[in-house]
Amino acid sequence: MPASYAYLGPEGTFTEVALRTLPETATRELVPYVSVQSALDAVRAGDAEAAFVPIENSVEGGITTTLDELVAGEPLMIYREVLLSITFALLVRPGTKLSDVKTVTAHPAAQPQVRNWLKAHLPDAVWESAASNADGARLVQEGRYDAAFAGEFAAARYGLEALVTEIHDAENAQTRFVLVGRPARPAAPSGADKTSVVLWQRDDHPGGLRDLLGEFATRGINLMLLQSRPTGAGIGNYCFCVDAEGHITDRRMAEALMGLKRICLQVRFLGSYPRAGIGPADVRPPLAGTSDQEFMAAADWVARCQDGRF
Amino acid sequence: MPASYAYLGPEGTFTEVALRTLPETATRELVPYVSVQSALDAVRAGDAEAAFVPIENSVEGGITTTLDELVAGEPLMIYREVLLSITFALLVRPGTKLSDVKTVTAHPAAQPQVRNWLKAHLPDAVWESAASNADGARLVQEGRYDAAFAGEFAAARYGLEALVTEIHDAENAQTRFVLVGRPARPAAPSGADKTSVVLWQRDDHPGGLRDLLGEFATRGINLMLLQSRPTGAGIGNYCFCVDAEGHITDRRMAEALMGLKRICLQVRFLGSYPRAGIGPADVRPPLAGTSDQEFMAAADWVARCQDGRF
Amino acid sequence: MPASYAYLGPEGTFTEVALRTLPETATRELVPYVSVQSALDAVRAGDAEAAFVPIENSVEGGITTTLDELVAGEPLMIYREVLLSITFALLVRPGTKLSDVKTVTAHPAAQPQVRNWLKAHLPDAVWESAASNADGARLVQEGRYDAAFAGEFAAARYGLEALVTEIHDAENAQTRFVLVGRPARPAAPSGADKTSVVLWQRDDHPGGLRDLLGEFATRGINLMLLQSRPTGAGIGNYCFCVDAEGHITDRRMAEALMGLKRICLQVRFLGSYPRAGIGPADVRPPLAGTSDQEFMAAADWVARCQDGRF
Amino acid sequence: MPASYAYLGPEGTFTEVALRTLPETATRELVPYVSVQSALDAVRAGDAEAAFVPIENSVEGGITTTLDELVAGEPLMIYREVLLSITFALLVRPGTKLSDVKTVTAHPAAQPQVRNWLKAHLPDAVWESAASNADGARLVQEGRYDAAFAGEFAAARYGLEALVTEIHDAENAQTRFVLVGRPARPAAPSGADKTSVVLWQRDDHPGGLRDLLGEFATRGINLMLLQSRPTGAGIGNYCFCVDAEGHITDRRMAEALMGLKRICLQVRFLGSYPRAGIGPADVRPPLAGTSDQEFMAAADWVARCQDGRF
Repeated sequence: MPASYAYLGPEGTFTEVALRTLPETATRELVPYVSVQSALDAVRAGDAEAAFVPIENSVEGGITTTLDELVAGEPLMIYREVLLSITFALLVRPGTKLSDVKTVTAHPAAQPQVRNWLKAHLPDAVWESAASNADGARLVQEGRYDAAFAGEFAAARYGLEALVTEIHDAENAQTRFVLVGRPARPAAPSGADKTSVVLWQRDDHPGGLRDLLGEFATRGINLMLLQSRPTGAGIGNYCFCVDAEGHITDRRMAEALMGLKRICLQVRFLGSYPRAGIGPADVRPPLAGTSDQEFMAAADWVARCQDGRF
Repeated sequence: MPASYAYLGPEGTFTEVALRTLPETATRELVPYVSVQSALDAVRAGDAEAAFVPIENSVEGGITTTLDELVAGEPLMIYREVLLSITFALLVRPGTKLSDVKTVTAHPAAQPQVRNWLKAHLPDAVWESAASNADGARLVQEGRYDAAFAGEFAAARYGLEALVTEIHDAENAQTRFVLVGRPARPAAPSGADKTSVVLWQRDDHPGGLRDLLGEFATRGINLMLLQSRPTGAGIGNYCFCVDAEGHITDRRMAEALMGLKRICLQVRFLGSYPRAGIGPADVRPPLAGTSDQEFMAAADWVARCQDGRF
Repeated sequence: MPASYAYLGPEGTFTEVALRTLPETATRELVPYVSVQSALDAVRAGDAEAAFVPIENSVEGGITTTLDELVAGEPLMIYREVLLSITFALLVRPGTKLSDVKTVTAHPAAQPQVRNWLKAHLPDAVWESAASNADGARLVQEGRYDAAFAGEFAAARYGLEALVTEIHDAENAQTRFVLVGRPARPAAPSGADKTSVVLWQRDDHPGGLRDLLGEFATRGINLMLLQSRPTGAGIGNYCFCVDAEGHITDRRMAEALMGLKRICLQVRFLGSYPRAGIGPADVRPPLAGTSDQEFMAAADWVARCQDGRF
Repeated sequence: MPASYAYLGPEGTFTEVALRTLPETATRELVPYVSVQSALDAVRAGDAEAAFVPIENSVEGGITTTLDELVAGEPLMIYREVLLSITFALLVRPGTKLSDVKTVTAHPAAQPQVRNWLKAHLPDAVWESAASNADGARLVQEGRYDAAFAGEFAAARYGLEALVTEIHDAENAQTRFVLVGRPARPAAPSGADKTSVVLWQRDDHPGGLRDLLGEFATRGINLMLLQSRPTGAGIGNYCFCVDAEGHITDRRMAEALMGLKRICLQVRFLGSYPRAGIGPADVRPPLAGTSDQEFMAAADWVARCQDGRF
């Protein structure tokens, strides 16, 4: 097993900052890749132990490139998630004044987070997309653009200065990143876990999606993300990426997944892993009738009925 | 184990006729009891191997005396059911003419089945209830009443003649009888089975009963009987006697019962047994996603996901 | 309109006692009938303004004779309900001692309410059913039986004495009576109302009954009675008598009934009327989203959307 | 009312091609805007009668920029939709050979549609995003990039030639465009209509989203799009853009929207409009119990019950 983690590069992006919050990165080689696809392909090819990529943010929602890579191709699994608060700095070459800024750049994902700030403070600046925020900073360094939106931490690396900091449109702008590897046994439940699956409906009829969600709802499982993604079979054909509270070894989750497996055309399991930013003490207790104890007691009771002892 | 079957007597009733359709009665002592309660108590006390009692008919619905006895007290289980078509004869002492009949008798359960006939042909006759149809025949023999409604087969036993036969209000009037014993392992599935349970709701709220029924519905299980019975806790407090298609060893039924056990205050299992009047060939195939094969494949898939092999 | 109320006689029964709690009976002629059927027929024929009959008790549940009469035939409507606590007295001829009692009588409906008392205190007494509790008392007066179970109030009328009083098996044994008339506009909502309907399923399939109940549940309507009754089309064919909290002019109830009308084979409206034993202050407030105000606001919003003004 | 239509420019994109399929464009001034936001703002400000923008494609799903603009800000309504099949050409300056192409450009939305082609035929080419496909073509004309992915129709405008045509990853790649205006009365039903709404859940609990979808499902309404979009209140907070089959003046749709209005925190109506690519003859008939006739008959029945006439 190669002791390296691939990540969405280049160096000096929010992704790298988030990745370095994982303790084991101290003993791993961290290798930047130019795209989510190439980072995940490195894992699939066995060139990296795992890949670290953004999967959801509070402005854009599910990050479709990542979801689409997980939905298709050789199966992968999520093992960890990291939440990072995102604020941008406007990075310029030293000496540049705000009134000098005619062109700005950043990764397209940054645009909705700085849009209002731009409208208010640089209404005439021309936006050009960059391959990454760090790449935008590099292009400013090279003189191609006047300013780049990036993490303040990127200024030093590219010899730029942060003209404005704490730029973000939404309060509590956050990005969620995941560490993805080849399928293996999920970590044991931490007490505050999340399970990710992809669901394909068997056919399209009134109530079809309601019934899928009912497999979670009737077992008291809360959903945290429901992101539709096109199946590639034409407009209106979607599969659904779902994040649900709980671990696949929870009895209620195992039964819900069994139910989905039975009624869906296809289900892809993307992993059960600890939730970032929340500990076991903060997790809501299971609804009446949905605890592991109640599931086991009920299974035991049915077994006794099947045997005529009750 | 005593080799006797208790049944709701006296001799010469529809119950005895139905009981004798069971092949094993050739080698059992058949003992009439004066009430459903006493017949079932004989089983509970170990004085009889099983009891044979009516449980549902097409005019009255669920027979409440029987249901109430099964709902409460020491648990019992249903092992067999028998369907019998019911038509009445008007039994009189030889020589009696219809115009001579001023008083008629029968068990109260017969009343709704002969009500319209009485109104049309003996509008002025006075009805007195008897403890059983056979007892009514005996009272006619003794001269206490002029005529009794009973099975035509009862005429010979009591020296009466059938003045009118084939009396019934509803077409296809049928009674369903069950053979009840102490709890033991249910017979293996016959391919056309029925499962009986009693359900007590945990609390009373909008949607409570809908959710109970949902445990069957979401697993594609059809209901054949839903009979509310008072819990004894005052007006408006009911438990529910339910007959559902399938056997407790069917995966979908086992999971539905587990679900009910988890969300109900209490569930009483009353048995899984072959359906009368229908064979495996007549049973509708399971809905998509609810066959044993699909349940097992789904459970296997979840187990593999839990293990990281898929 | 004849100013008379029919009721299930004879005089001196619990039914008459309950009926006399209605203030307007002071100005009505109260006419006993020998059966629920005949009392309701009197209303249908125009011979009585209304009929007063028992419909549910805490021991037997829904009273099937009454329900079956309301389910079939010329439509009738319920306008009022009365709750009466039921306890029995053991009525005997003056001088009779408990040890003298060899035969007892009462209406069959009394039997489950006195069964345990009988078993404990008169285990050898022979039970004979009477046409009514009052009739049983009369038969004791005539010397045909030794004792009758009836309301204590019946003793004086028949020259008997109450040897034992306060006999009842279930705590809070109650019977619910209804005043039934020909269809007319229901009384305006009292703030604590009940709506009664009969539902026939369009076809029999897994989830069919769950979906019927869903029409109430999704609109936050609580059910108070669900009583299955045979349709007469053979074993296993049932319609459902339902009592639901609320008035047909409540928006949520009107919409639920519309939904039922659309998905059922048939719906029979049996009336909206004030609940006995509970006032507006005791009624739970509507669940979020189900108040009349919210229904009207939502309808208004849709109308504005249809018109492009919002 | 200004007789101009804004559209997502520049000229020579798929959007303009789609827009020109609308007959009324013959009599409108068509004004390109640099972004979806600016085109929609032109409508909000009264500078344009309507705006024409992409909203969904078969590769990317819902186009989030457009959805986010419709979800927030001054309400707008959709009046028309257009479906356009999308295939790309690789546009180069005349004389360029495939082996000469080191840099390629296009709008980011084009990337997933040409990704596999690129990997197979130009694995080493560097991708740079352009503000639009037409803009990419312009940049090729100016010599900044070697090749641009764009519609073949754009070649002539920019003096380029189509080196490769019919490039698309998914079969039947299509984009759906909508014509958006200020709120007004929707067009009368065409017989094949679609209704778009945005739903915000009142609170987050197990079953919350299932219940929202249930408002459509219980009335037999099929969903065509369910796209979650962040509410801006932090990770995990989503609203839902829903396209449903039918018109707001259909009784089932009106009742479903009323139900959503009652149980949601907020509902935004985005319009009812004819579906592209399907005529009334191709629309599935309403499920049993959900036709306008059945809704009206049910409403009429409830009104008669409320009045005591039935």
